[in-house]
Amino acid sequence: MIVVMKSHADLTDRDAVLTRLAENNLKGHLSEGEERIVIGVVGAKIPAGLEEQLQSMSGVQTTLRITRPYKLAGREFQQHNTVIRVGDLEIGGGTPVVMAGPCSVESAEQLLSTAHAVKAAGANILRGGAFKPRTSPYAFRGLGEEGLKILAQAREETGLPIITEALNTRDVELVARYTDIIQLGARNMQNFALLEEAGQTGKPIMVKRGPSATVEEWLLAAEYILATGNRNVILCERGIRTYETATRNTLDLNAVAVAKRRTHLPVIADPSHGTGKWYLVAPMALAGLAAGADGLMIEVHHDPDRASSDGPQSLNHLNFAQLMQQVRRLIAALEPELAVA
Amino acid sequence: MIVVMKSHADLTDRDAVLTRLAENNLKGHLSEGEERIVIGVVGAKIPAGLEEQLQSMSGVQTTLRITRPYKLAGREFQQHNTVIRVGDLEIGGGTPVVMAGPCSVESAEQLLSTAHAVKAAGANILRGGAFKPRTSPYAFRGLGEEGLKILAQAREETGLPIITEALNTRDVELVARYTDIIQLGARNMQNFALLEEAGQTGKPIMVKRGPSATVEEWLLAAEYILATGNRNVILCERGIRTYETATRNTLDLNAVAVAKRRTHLPVIADPSHGTGKWYLVAPMALAGLAAGADGLMIEVHHDPDRASSDGPQSLNHLNFAQLMQQVRRLIAALEPELAVA
Amino acid sequence: MIVVMKSHADLTDRDAVLTRLAENNLKGHLSEGEERIVIGVVGAKIPAGLEEQLQSMSGVQTTLRITRPYKLAGREFQQHNTVIRVGDLEIGGGTPVVMAGPCSVESAEQLLSTAHAVKAAGANILRGGAFKPRTSPYAFRGLGEEGLKILAQAREETGLPIITEALNTRDVELVARYTDIIQLGARNMQNFALLEEAGQTGKPIMVKRGPSATVEEWLLAAEYILATGNRNVILCERGIRTYETATRNTLDLNAVAVAKRRTHLPVIADPSHGTGKWYLVAPMALAGLAAGADGLMIEVHHDPDRASSDGPQSLNHLNFAQLMQQVRRLIAALEPELAVA
Amino acid sequence: MIVVMKSHADLTDRDAVLTRLAENNLKGHLSEGEERIVIGVVGAKIPAGLEEQLQSMSGVQTTLRITRPYKLAGREFQQHNTVIRVGDLEIGGGTPVVMAGPCSVESAEQLLSTAHAVKAAGANILRGGAFKPRTSPYAFRGLGEEGLKILAQAREETGLPIITEALNTRDVELVARYTDIIQLGARNMQNFALLEEAGQTGKPIMVKRGPSATVEEWLLAAEYILATGNRNVILCERGIRTYETATRNTLDLNAVAVAKRRTHLPVIADPSHGTGKWYLVAPMALAGLAAGADGLMIEVHHDPDRASSDGPQSLNHLNFAQLMQQVRRLIAALEPELAVA
Repeated sequence: MIVVMKSHADLTDRDAVLTRLAENNLKGHLSEGEERIVIGVVGAKIPAGLEEQLQSMSGVQTTLRITRPYKLAGREFQQHNTVIRVGDLEIGGGTPVVMAGPCSVESAEQLLSTAHAVKAAGANILRGGAFKPRTSPYAFRGLGEEGLKILAQAREETGLPIITEALNTRDVELVARYTDIIQLGARNMQNFALLEEAGQTGKPIMVKRGPSATVEEWLLAAEYILATGNRNVILCERGIRTYETATRNTLDLNAVAVAKRRTHLPVIADPSHGTGKWYLVAPMALAGLAAGADGLMIEVHHDPDRASSDGPQSLNHLNFAQLMQQVRRLIAALEPELAVA
Repeated sequence: MIVVMKSHADLTDRDAVLTRLAENNLKGHLSEGEERIVIGVVGAKIPAGLEEQLQSMSGVQTTLRITRPYKLAGREFQQHNTVIRVGDLEIGGGTPVVMAGPCSVESAEQLLSTAHAVKAAGANILRGGAFKPRTSPYAFRGLGEEGLKILAQAREETGLPIITEALNTRDVELVARYTDIIQLGARNMQNFALLEEAGQTGKPIMVKRGPSATVEEWLLAAEYILATGNRNVILCERGIRTYETATRNTLDLNAVAVAKRRTHLPVIADPSHGTGKWYLVAPMALAGLAAGADGLMIEVHHDPDRASSDGPQSLNHLNFAQLMQQVRRLIAALEPELAVA
Repeated sequence: MIVVMKSHADLTDRDAVLTRLAENNLKGHLSEGEERIVIGVVGAKIPAGLEEQLQSMSGVQTTLRITRPYKLAGREFQQHNTVIRVGDLEIGGGTPVVMAGPCSVESAEQLLSTAHAVKAAGANILRGGAFKPRTSPYAFRGLGEEGLKILAQAREETGLPIITEALNTRDVELVARYTDIIQLGARNMQNFALLEEAGQTGKPIMVKRGPSATVEEWLLAAEYILATGNRNVILCERGIRTYETATRNTLDLNAVAVAKRRTHLPVIADPSHGTGKWYLVAPMALAGLAAGADGLMIEVHHDPDRASSDGPQSLNHLNFAQLMQQVRRLIAALEPELAVA
Repeated sequence: MIVVMKSHADLTDRDAVLTRLAENNLKGHLSEGEERIVIGVVGAKIPAGLEEQLQSMSGVQTTLRITRPYKLAGREFQQHNTVIRVGDLEIGGGTPVVMAGPCSVESAEQLLSTAHAVKAAGANILRGGAFKPRTSPYAFRGLGEEGLKILAQAREETGLPIITEALNTRDVELVARYTDIIQLGARNMQNFALLEEAGQTGKPIMVKRGPSATVEEWLLAAEYILATGNRNVILCERGIRTYETATRNTLDLNAVAVAKRRTHLPVIADPSHGTGKWYLVAPMALAGLAAGADGLMIEVHHDPDRASSDGPQSLNHLNFAQLMQQVRRLIAALEPELAVA
């Protein structure tokens, strides 16, 4: 950390900062320019909270944190890519994976129909929501455990591992009993108790980026899980909130490319939530892979205009099958070293 | 709701929409223009989810929802202002209230010192965090129940009612046992289980607006609580996330004025989180009241550069006392009918 | 257009709207629901400004414009893609083009070095700025006409057509004398006099999207040029301003995919300005093509750390050559029908 | 400026930076910590462009600019408030001013009617657009010089000085001949040729903040004018673009308070454009003054639902007169030292 003093700070201000550093077992290395003093902070460990305190001290103009605030999630901590194994499947292992299925589990018939269709088209993982976060208290909130049982049945029939969301700390244990990967939703990216509770199950966890989260905050959410000892964390970019209204969200593929540089964790792109329009899913899915994503999450429904939720952004079975052909052609063109970009 | 058909939609498309409406016990009132058909939806109750389904149907260009998605929170439901009573204090009753205190409860000595200071300066409610949401897993997370006990002690000594945050469903019962008002934080605005759990305590609940929540989503969060039967809901604007980096957040006073029109619930402004800079708190506090807020929430610390959290945005005791003098002068100038704006 | 009346609007309000429509040679088609009246506006031409007037009338809740506000730019006006010919080169013709070169023309030596390098690597068009818009009045503003002459010399030596920016109406004629394509910058997207002045030259014009422009506003900027009779308009997405600070801008590839649906004009992606970081240019360039862009604009400098401007986002010659290999592989994998997405 | 080296930067990297600094007549002051080297840059003048070059050098992680990029606009350059005199009126002199009038000059009758009304209600300056920037090429673009003549006539009749917008460098001389204050619009905040051309007239210039401009960029736009030798610059906050759709823009009063700290120039708030809704103008006007604004700009029309532009955000004569009563009461309550905040 660097502490930049104001141009009119005096020696008392400077010494107060040095004393404060000493109280925290740190040294201040002075760099006195013509206009102002800059203090480089030297020491093994900078306590959490110290930076804000320094910013509040008399004569301090600003501070500059140089090291990233996350540790376990960073490439500095682990240079090679984390590869997460779910059965025979590898996530982050070089070949992109495709997670597909309906927004909500609505019935056994509905889920099994789509499960078989996405399997046939080449998907690797089945998605489906049993607990649904809804902006309005009056909307459909999912089938709950009944939905989890249907997901498990679909796994049995198709062999596809499943991913489904846990909404609350109360649901975690139940969801973990059924699912292969626990999904934590965008609205819950900073639900810290949930991050920790999910982490403690030891299951692979996919953390969606919050709609106004920076890449750094997203990686800090992953850090919460990693700090529980669970190293099986997957990131998922699903669109951020901007001023643009032509799309439901703005899928931020820049963040995929940035995250691939900063972290060793696998990164998935979700063009369904990212755009909110089924006709934008294909171009943005391909773009996501080209930007270096380790996989895709795609909403598929056998009859989108009867879907309980997210119909406007769901592909039907035929559109999904066509997209998968394009995906395969693209993956073949993108060699592994390129995908890392 | 209105369904707008595409210009090239055909009769089959049109009839499919009419049939779908009929399935939901609704009628479609056709308006056939030169270029396209518009269908007005007539009926007592439009099921949740139907709008998305219609958007997914062949030939449908868009839908327009006319009524607000919340009910209990709206001025249509209740025209007069909700007044919330906490002891002798009225929130939303015409005279703005001031909630003040430290970000975190750090010790009995610290909290009591600030509690007496804000009481002397004219604050009405004492704030202080016992459970702290932190972006990084390595930061200070609060004293927990020990902090709640200190808050209760401060209430006893000063007579000020207290407000403190519940972070998780697990904490709600504990927090409710001690506090007068439960605060739900910005990151938890769409933690729906928490909204409901807090609502069920029957305590007054203050819901902070999420950093990328629209006014509509904020009112829907309030609706979650109202739907539990708890009518004691307070809204708090605390800054949204924009591209501007000169402030920590962008305190959105437009939202205060909009909310005062749309809802009967009291609205509080929080210039401390809204700006992130102690020297911007005074002008934005006064601006908040002028925009029609029913009160302010202000962070105060006896020694901001020793604060465990939020030091840079905390007023010291002297600055707070000065602000309260300005606040009183402003309130006197703003007559009641003006405050409603 | 549809006019939605408030639920408590009365017959006087309704009739005033109908009268206002009649004054404008329009008819109002009434749709009276249980709760409110909706008026469909029928007629050949809705005057500009009428929508805002209706919104201001007593009893009107809102209006809904159904048709897009642009005409010449829309797919409704022209279904097939516009193909712009610059010498032998086709922009929008199915095979993506690559525009490359330095941010600023700094000297003949510098530009010629890079011009030969990008030509050798496979670029189709040479870019370089002679007039530079700068946020600070104290920054380098380009060589002016001297820069244009150097660009023309580079064209002669390499055979590459050139693109360069016109900043002001005063420069347009001069720039048009030298360049093959006139670029209008993001800050000037709503400099309407400049749009028209550039349009009147008849030269191909590339319009960059403003950093906070919606897709609709971007297409309206193109409409300004098209309305001059000049049909050679190219769009360029170069990143929007969001809350995220990990990148200089947020390259919005969603907008590329949306624009390809709404307009017949070619769309270029600029990952250099879009990300601001040279190491993000390659993944986002590939993603741009996968999203359906008709080409790329890439900043290249022979020695980025000596560049007069935009060094941090410029590729050096070697990195650009490597990227072009990846670009060729990707284009081969993306068949034409896929690129249209 | 401070240059932070990467943790794995080597001595060659370090020496290259030091050499580059020396080439620019600067010294580098080394601060070697345990993990990395930090170089403080010492010298009289850091050339524009050097920071970007340093960022592009091998081994450099980041740079930190400490001094503000503007000079003449900053409080460091001039501590006391700039007071701009227009006839007998002072802008920035402690007592807030009110600029009011229609969005567009539509006719002599219309403008004179409103001019007399706002004068009677207590406005100090008359606003009205003769040249109108319009998003669509098909919208009303103003009466041009005819509009300027009408404005001059209204000045003669009422004694109110006038403010009107210059859209292009071509209009500046004409507009300057008629107006007392030249307004530069939000879309033109970075139209640098226009800033300079307007500056060179010597007239007072009011620069509106661009809809996605930071406070720093806004002050740099003012710097362009100040650098022409014209010190009569007024800033105007008129709303930024955010994700929120409940208002047309988000009036950012935080920026008013920030600007009042950083610059000595007067700052005006425009709640009409800032909110886009006439019923939000009053609360946000009062909030603007409470936040420390030196004045207000308010759109007023004698018959908003017949306005050529901006009807939905225009007050009628009666509403404006009522607002002015509230404004006077508020100004009386806000003592001068408070307004500076």
